[in-house]
Amino acid sequence: MNPNEIKVFCPATIANISCGFDVLGVALDSVGDEMVIRKVDEKGIRITKLEGQDLPMQTLQNVAGVAGLAFLEASSYEGGFEIEIYKKIKAGSGIGSSAASSTGAVWAMNELLGKPFTRLELVKFAMEGERLASGVAHADNVAPALFGGFTLVRSYDPLDVVSIPSPSELCAAVIHPQIEVKTSDSRKILKTNITLADGIKQWGNVGGLVAGLFTADYDLIGRSLVDHIVEPIRSILIPGFDDVKETAIETGALGCGISGSGPSIFTFCKGEETAQKVGEAMKEVYQNIGIDYDIHVSRVNMEGIRKI
Amino acid sequence: MNPNEIKVFCPATIANISCGFDVLGVALDSVGDEMVIRKVDEKGIRITKLEGQDLPMQTLQNVAGVAGLAFLEASSYEGGFEIEIYKKIKAGSGIGSSAASSTGAVWAMNELLGKPFTRLELVKFAMEGERLASGVAHADNVAPALFGGFTLVRSYDPLDVVSIPSPSELCAAVIHPQIEVKTSDSRKILKTNITLADGIKQWGNVGGLVAGLFTADYDLIGRSLVDHIVEPIRSILIPGFDDVKETAIETGALGCGISGSGPSIFTFCKGEETAQKVGEAMKEVYQNIGIDYDIHVSRVNMEGIRKI
Repeated sequence: MNPNEIKVFCPATIANISCGFDVLGVALDSVGDEMVIRKVDEKGIRITKLEGQDLPMQTLQNVAGVAGLAFLEASSYEGGFEIEIYKKIKAGSGIGSSAASSTGAVWAMNELLGKPFTRLELVKFAMEGERLASGVAHADNVAPALFGGFTLVRSYDPLDVVSIPSPSELCAAVIHPQIEVKTSDSRKILKTNITLADGIKQWGNVGGLVAGLFTADYDLIGRSLVDHIVEPIRSILIPGFDDVKETAIETGALGCGISGSGPSIFTFCKGEETAQKVGEAMKEVYQNIGIDYDIHVSRVNMEGIRKI
Repeated sequence: MNPNEIKVFCPATIANISCGFDVLGVALDSVGDEMVIRKVDEKGIRITKLEGQDLPMQTLQNVAGVAGLAFLEASSYEGGFEIEIYKKIKAGSGIGSSAASSTGAVWAMNELLGKPFTRLELVKFAMEGERLASGVAHADNVAPALFGGFTLVRSYDPLDVVSIPSPSELCAAVIHPQIEVKTSDSRKILKTNITLADGIKQWGNVGGLVAGLFTADYDLIGRSLVDHIVEPIRSILIPGFDDVKETAIETGALGCGISGSGPSIFTFCKGEETAQKVGEAMKEVYQNIGIDYDIHVSRVNMEGIRKI
C-alpha cells in the first residue's frame, strides 16, 4: 500500500448514556465507517469520494473536511490531504455518524504525519466537525471514537476526557428506527432548568454507573442506567420508545436509553447472546408498528479508530 | 471484658463531597466518638452515660436511642440495651456527629446479637437517628461510618449504597470554625431548581471523582472536586470560606469544600505531610479572623466503625 495513504475503521458511538447526558459515551465495534486518507503535496483538504450516504463533498460543508482543516491549521505540515469516505453509519441515526467522519479524518492525518498531536488534541479538531453538524462543538461522540471504550467528558474548559474501563462481557444492542429527529430539535425541546432533586438522582446514577464499569458489576450498571431528566422529554420524539424499552428490559437488557439525540435506542446487555435476543425483541416492536429499522449488536470497541 | 458488652470507635465522616452533594461521603480515622453498648434483660434502650457534649439522654430525643429503637423493632431480640456515649465529635460541626452516635449504636447491637442484619439494613436503622437530628433521614454520613472508605448513596428508593475505593495516600485535613450553622438553615438556603448546564458539570465531576478514586489519579480527583451548585450558596454562611479554600489549594490541597452542611471545611491531600501543612495554613486564616477552630488531619478510614 502507498505509504502516504491509510485506510481506517471509524466506529459508531453511543453518547448521552442515560444518566450520563452530555458526558458519557462509548465506542461500538460492529458498525462504523471506512475512510481512506491520502497525503498529497497540494495544500488543503479535498473529499475525493463519498459513498453510502448523500452528504456534501465540499470541504467546508463536510464534517471530515472541517475537522481536517482544524488539524491542518494547527499543524506545521505544508501539504494537504485527500479523503475518501465510505459511510456505513446513516446520517442522523444518533450513533455518531458525523463523529465517525470527523475523527477518522484527523486520526488518520495524525498517523500519516507521525503523530504530532495527542488524542486530546485530536478530540478538539474533531469537535469542529461536530460544530458544523449540529451547531455545538460537543465531544460526547468524538471522545469515545478516538479513545475507545467508555469515555467521560468531565469538562470542556479546559477539555478533560477520562477513560472508563468496560467489563469484558458488556455488549450493546442498538435499534435505529428510520424516522428523522433533528439534533437541533431535540436540543430545543430540553428544559433550561431542572430540579435539584432530579440532579442529585442523576449524579448518584453517574457515580454508580462509573463504579459499576470499574468493578464489572453488571447489576449496578443496570441499576444506574436511569435518566430522570432528558429521556422523559426526548423520548416523546421517538414513536414506540416506551414499548421498546419495556421489551428490552423484559428480555434481559441491563438498561435502555436514547442514543445521542435519537432516534436510535441503545441497550446494554451482559453477553452477546442476550444482546442478540434483545435486538430481536426490539425489532418486533417496530415490525408491529410498521416502522423500518436497522439493528446493531456489538461488543464495546476498546481501541477506537483503527487502521485496516 | 463482659461478653454482653462491646466498646466501639465511631468515625467522623465528611458528606456532600463537593460535586457529590447528597450522595458522596467518606469516613475519617483520627476523629470519632467512643461508645459502650451493653446487652441487658430489661427491654428497650437506655442512655446510661453521655460525656463530652451537652445532648439529651432521653432515648426518644437521642439519635443513638432512636436508631437503637429502630434496630430493636426490626429484631426478634426480646431484651434491651444500655448505651454509654463518649462524644469527641462536636455536635453541629458538619462532620457527622449524629451519624457517629446512630451508627455506633446499631453496629454494636448487631455485633452483640451475632450479626442478624446486613450493613445496608443497619444504614436504614441509623437513618432514623439522622431524621431526629436534622428532620431528613439521609444516609450520606451513616453510610461511610458503617461501610468505611468512600460511599456513594446511589438511590434511596430502594436504598443503594456503593463502596468506592480510596487511594492509599489520600488524606483529609478538616477545619471546624466554632460558629453555628444549623442543618435546617443550610437546607433552606438551597434553591429548588438548578440549570441543566450546571447539572451536567456536576455529574461530569462526580464521574471524574469516582474514576479518580478507582485509578488513584490524584490530579483527576483534584480537578473533579468542584461544586457548581451548592457551595456557591452555602459558603456564604461560613465566614472566611473563600480565604480558607484559596489558602488550602495554594498550600497543595487537591480540593476543598464544605463538609456536610458546614461549618467544617474539608480538604483532600496527597500524603499526610501535605495534609498537615494544609491544616496549618487553614488554621492561620481563622487565627487572623479571630474565630476559634478545631483541626483534624486524618487518613481515610477504610473499615468504618470498629471494636476497640
